[in-house]
Amino acid sequence: MRQSRRGQVDPFIVMDVMEQARLAEAAGRRIIHMEVGQPSTPAPAAARRALAAALDEPLGYTVALGLPALRAGIAALYRRWYGIDLDPARVVITPGSSGAFMLAFSALFDAGDRVAVGEPGYPSYRQILRAMSVEPVGLQTRPENRYQPVPEDIPAGVQGVMIASPGNPSGTMLGRDALAALAARTAELGAALISDEIYHGLSYGARCASALEVTDDVIVINSFSKYFSMTGWRIGWMVVPRDMVRAMERLAANMFICPPHASQLAALAALSPEGEAEAEANLAVYAANRSLMLDRLPAMGITRIAPPDGAFYIYADVSDLTDDSMALAAAILDGAGVAVTPGLDFDPVRGRQTLRLSYARSTAEIEEALDRLAAWMAGR
Amino acid sequence: MRQSRRGQVDPFIVMDVMEQARLAEAAGRRIIHMEVGQPSTPAPAAARRALAAALDEPLGYTVALGLPALRAGIAALYRRWYGIDLDPARVVITPGSSGAFMLAFSALFDAGDRVAVGEPGYPSYRQILRAMSVEPVGLQTRPENRYQPVPEDIPAGVQGVMIASPGNPSGTMLGRDALAALAARTAELGAALISDEIYHGLSYGARCASALEVTDDVIVINSFSKYFSMTGWRIGWMVVPRDMVRAMERLAANMFICPPHASQLAALAALSPEGEAEAEANLAVYAANRSLMLDRLPAMGITRIAPPDGAFYIYADVSDLTDDSMALAAAILDGAGVAVTPGLDFDPVRGRQTLRLSYARSTAEIEEALDRLAAWMAGR
Repeated sequence: MRQSRRGQVDPFIVMDVMEQARLAEAAGRRIIHMEVGQPSTPAPAAARRALAAALDEPLGYTVALGLPALRAGIAALYRRWYGIDLDPARVVITPGSSGAFMLAFSALFDAGDRVAVGEPGYPSYRQILRAMSVEPVGLQTRPENRYQPVPEDIPAGVQGVMIASPGNPSGTMLGRDALAALAARTAELGAALISDEIYHGLSYGARCASALEVTDDVIVINSFSKYFSMTGWRIGWMVVPRDMVRAMERLAANMFICPPHASQLAALAALSPEGEAEAEANLAVYAANRSLMLDRLPAMGITRIAPPDGAFYIYADVSDLTDDSMALAAAILDGAGVAVTPGLDFDPVRGRQTLRLSYARSTAEIEEALDRLAAWMAGR
Repeated sequence: MRQSRRGQVDPFIVMDVMEQARLAEAAGRRIIHMEVGQPSTPAPAAARRALAAALDEPLGYTVALGLPALRAGIAALYRRWYGIDLDPARVVITPGSSGAFMLAFSALFDAGDRVAVGEPGYPSYRQILRAMSVEPVGLQTRPENRYQPVPEDIPAGVQGVMIASPGNPSGTMLGRDALAALAARTAELGAALISDEIYHGLSYGARCASALEVTDDVIVINSFSKYFSMTGWRIGWMVVPRDMVRAMERLAANMFICPPHASQLAALAALSPEGEAEAEANLAVYAANRSLMLDRLPAMGITRIAPPDGAFYIYADVSDLTDDSMALAAAILDGAGVAVTPGLDFDPVRGRQTLRLSYARSTAEIEEALDRLAAWMAGR
């Protein structure tokens, strides 16, 4: 059958690691998974309980923008987290942040437009843009800028700027001043600013700053996947400028009809004090894991680590160890039984010399992974 | 904020009816809803029970193509329904048929391509295509062809042909010969054939024929929404040619990461004998409702009805009553307390003279709606 040019997207490099890990497990080995970007914990108990209680109702379509109570609950979260007075009418519930990207890119960009994306960064920004005939313009961010774009990185001639804080894979954050400077540069270019804030709530020093704290002329994208440990539920949200709500509603009604009803009910309950307490308990585990990683990785020779302000990743420059991060990841899997992600998924230019390690698992698992890694590194 | 041209999609005409119905209900009136295209029943009990039992597991991401057991379960359904021996590797689980449309259109078409869509038809085909910078080419189907396209309707110069059987809003079906003729014409043009089979299982005479019975060179789209009464769960599937599976997997991983995990578990259980028995019981209700509609609508003056082979709609040509289906729908809502859909959502050319009535509710409600309609029509 005929296939489109835009449908030919790059494979995920990490898939090879995952397949090798699967084969090793099928052969009886125990693999510790640091390659996947998700918590190993379930959704908050409050969320699961609320859904269980609703299962006898006909969970039909909801309105396209999502349940009003959930939109109001998210607006209330913005007051708690950022002290922002947000009109719930500006909140759009989406099928995960993935759905939010597709909705935002459709509403903002036409075929042939160009959108700046930081490298390293979440690979699906590039792939979704290409699948929409929009051209991603990679910005090679610098280690001295914490792998985040600075205003002078953003070239003229782009119609959009995609930022992410805490970043994936870097974990580095943009403070209010940095956000304001990027917003000003974007506005100067007449471009649209999109801020991916999916790891908000997961920080280990300063709190995460939202782009909404510095401008209303931004599309903010977030999700219940990470902080609320609800990856497989595919439920996220956007905050959009008031004048875009109607266009988003019409697009969403056609592209999704509505976000999954069951996931909306679960997400609403995740926003309860009990749900947030469980999320905070998960965060405490990640904080302990992060300390272990930062204590022990340098001692085993992994020293060039991006400042891990937030999220649950360590992004390491391993150029002193390899020019082939895929081979290194394969060797670590084979030798240590630890799955890690080669940086090529995140940075097509420098990713041959970087690895991402996720520490969103139990502390016991992280300790064991570090023991294994240390032994393997020592025996190289 | 800047907005794209392709993001400016048409509003749903039916939204006005729904908003008026909401206001009437808020004022204390009881409205019977024949405007929504969904069952009023919940998901099969087996599906809800299976999910309840799984809620303690961490429902993280699944693989992008969906749970292997669900893909195998759907392949088994093709044996039961069509006698087709389908390789589960060709089954792609999607976030509803909506997600399947986005995936299929992305994989098949580039910006500027043209895709033939029958009119009347599901409005989101047109809107999603436009949001991807693909041009829908409306085919005005003829009542004497049961509102379905015939090969000579399909013009040269299109890269794709979208068909639907049973059709929405028409409810009319394409038999194997008609499917084969359309597939041949599509192949002759070097275009891709996409067959929307979301209403399969819901027919009242002949069984529904799948395009897969006449060709493997087709993308078939289906969903658990209608026959299995799972609209809000946003879970559907595609069957794709073998040489497209890999491209679909990569696109889906980027566009959706995965379909909702909870919905996949529920859908798997819906495929059980118990789940199908419940779906068949719902079908028996629709069959009774359809008989009532066909008995009583002509007596009240609604006589020109598309042959309602399947789905749960009556699509009526009311040109002898009105040139303004929006005004007629508003008058019916106001006068009879019955919400119906003006045809303009489905047919931009002739929809001013048509209405769609959904009968996917309890028989008692359909009887009451018919009583109300008859009284109102008699008093006009």
